[in-house]
Amino acid sequence: MTDFEAIHEISQLKYRYLRAFDTKDWELFQSCFAPEATCAYGGLDFANVTDLMAYMHKNVREGMSTMHHVHHPEIEVDGDTATGTWYLTDKVMYPKYDYALEGTAFYADRYRRTEDGWKITHTGYTRVWEATWKPSELPSWKLQ
Amino acid sequence: MTDFEAIHEISQLKYRYLRAFDTKDWELFQSCFAPEATCAYGGLDFANVTDLMAYMHKNVREGMSTMHHVHHPEIEVDGDTATGTWYLTDKVMYPKYDYALEGTAFYADRYRRTEDGWKITHTGYTRVWEATWKPSELPSWKLQ
Amino acid sequence: MTDFEAIHEISQLKYRYLRAFDTKDWELFQSCFAPEATCAYGGLDFANVTDLMAYMHKNVREGMSTMHHVHHPEIEVDGDTATGTWYLTDKVMYPKYDYALEGTAFYADRYRRTEDGWKITHTGYTRVWEATWKPSELPSWKLQ
Repeated sequence: MTDFEAIHEISQLKYRYLRAFDTKDWELFQSCFAPEATCAYGGLDFANVTDLMAYMHKNVREGMSTMHHVHHPEIEVDGDTATGTWYLTDKVMYPKYDYALEGTAFYADRYRRTEDGWKITHTGYTRVWEATWKPSELPSWKLQ
Repeated sequence: MTDFEAIHEISQLKYRYLRAFDTKDWELFQSCFAPEATCAYGGLDFANVTDLMAYMHKNVREGMSTMHHVHHPEIEVDGDTATGTWYLTDKVMYPKYDYALEGTAFYADRYRRTEDGWKITHTGYTRVWEATWKPSELPSWKLQ
Repeated sequence: MTDFEAIHEISQLKYRYLRAFDTKDWELFQSCFAPEATCAYGGLDFANVTDLMAYMHKNVREGMSTMHHVHHPEIEVDGDTATGTWYLTDKVMYPKYDYALEGTAFYADRYRRTEDGWKITHTGYTRVWEATWKPSELPSWKLQ
C-alpha cells in the first residue's frame, strides 16, 4: 500500500521549502534541511547547509523576484527514507541587472524522517531547458 | 491522522472554482461559495457574493483570456472548517487593451463543510510579484 | 469513499507520460498507453498508438524544447476504468524555426486498469487559449 501520510508530509516539506525561498524567509528555509544535507542545483553544488545558507544570504537579495513551482511528484517511500522526483518551473527576474530567466528542471531529492518530521537530505535538479532575456528590450515590461 | 478525504474535497472545490473562472462559467463559479463568503484579491475586496458576481459579469468579458493555476496546497482541516494556503500563478491577456499580466501570489482561503459539500467562506491572496507588458511591442505575438 | 490508491496510480501514470514526452523518452512514452488507445490533441487526432508514435518520432526532434505541466486533477474512478480532467499549461520552443508557443488546455482522459497497471485508453485536450511569437523579435532571448 502507498504510504500517503509520508507522501503528504514530504510534499508539505517541499512546498514550505519553496515558499520560504520565494518569500526570502531564510530561517524557515534552513529548517527544511537535515544537518547532513547536500545540494546540487544544476551545476551549483553545496557540500553542507552552512555553505548553502551563506550563498543564499549573499546572492538572493531584495529586488530579485523569483518563482519556484514544483509539479508531478513521483515520491518513493522506504521506511524512514524517501526519494522524490519533481518537475520544476522557475523564474528569476532581476530588473537592476536587466535580467530575466525562465526554466524547467527535474528535481531528484532524498528525504529522511527525523524526530522533528521529514527533512531534506539532498536536493538537486537537472535542467531540461533554460531561457534568458533582457527586459529592457520590452520597454513596457514592468515588475512590481 | 491527516484527513485526506476533506483535503481531497477541498482541492476539488478549488480546481472547480478556477476552472469556472477561466472558462467564464459564472453559475459554476458562484456555486463554489458559501452564502456568507468574502474575497480579497490583492487589494480588490468584496464583502459579499452578490458584489463579487456583479464585478465578474461586468469586467471579465469575451476577449479577455486568463489562466489561474494553484500549486503547493497546505491545507489544515479542523472539523467542519479548514484553511488553505495555495501558490497561485496567473496570467491575463486582453489584446483589445494591449495588455498582458503575469503574476504569482499566495492564497489564504477559508472553507466550511456544508450540507452541499465544502464551500469557500473566504478567499484572498497576497502578491509576491506581478509583471505587465504591452503585447504590441512584440509584433509577432498572436493570441487565439 | 474516494479511491486514493487508484487516483495516485493514475496521477503517477500521467506524470510519467509527460516526463517521457518532455525528455523525448519514446519507449517510456509508449508504455503509458493501452493497445487500443486514441488521442485528440486540440484538432490533431490519432486513431491508434502506431500512428501516434510515428508522428512523435517524425516531429518532436532535437532542438525542439517543450514543457507540459498538468494541474488540478479531477479524477473519477469507476471500478477498473476512470476519467480524468487536468488543466494543462504547455510551452514549445523551436529556435531553428523562430517559433515559440505557450498555451493552456483542459485534458479529458480515459484510463483502464490492466494487469500491468493503469494505462491511458484516450487522451485529448481542448484549448482555452494559445499564444505564439517569434523569438527573433527579442534579440537577447537565448535558449539553452
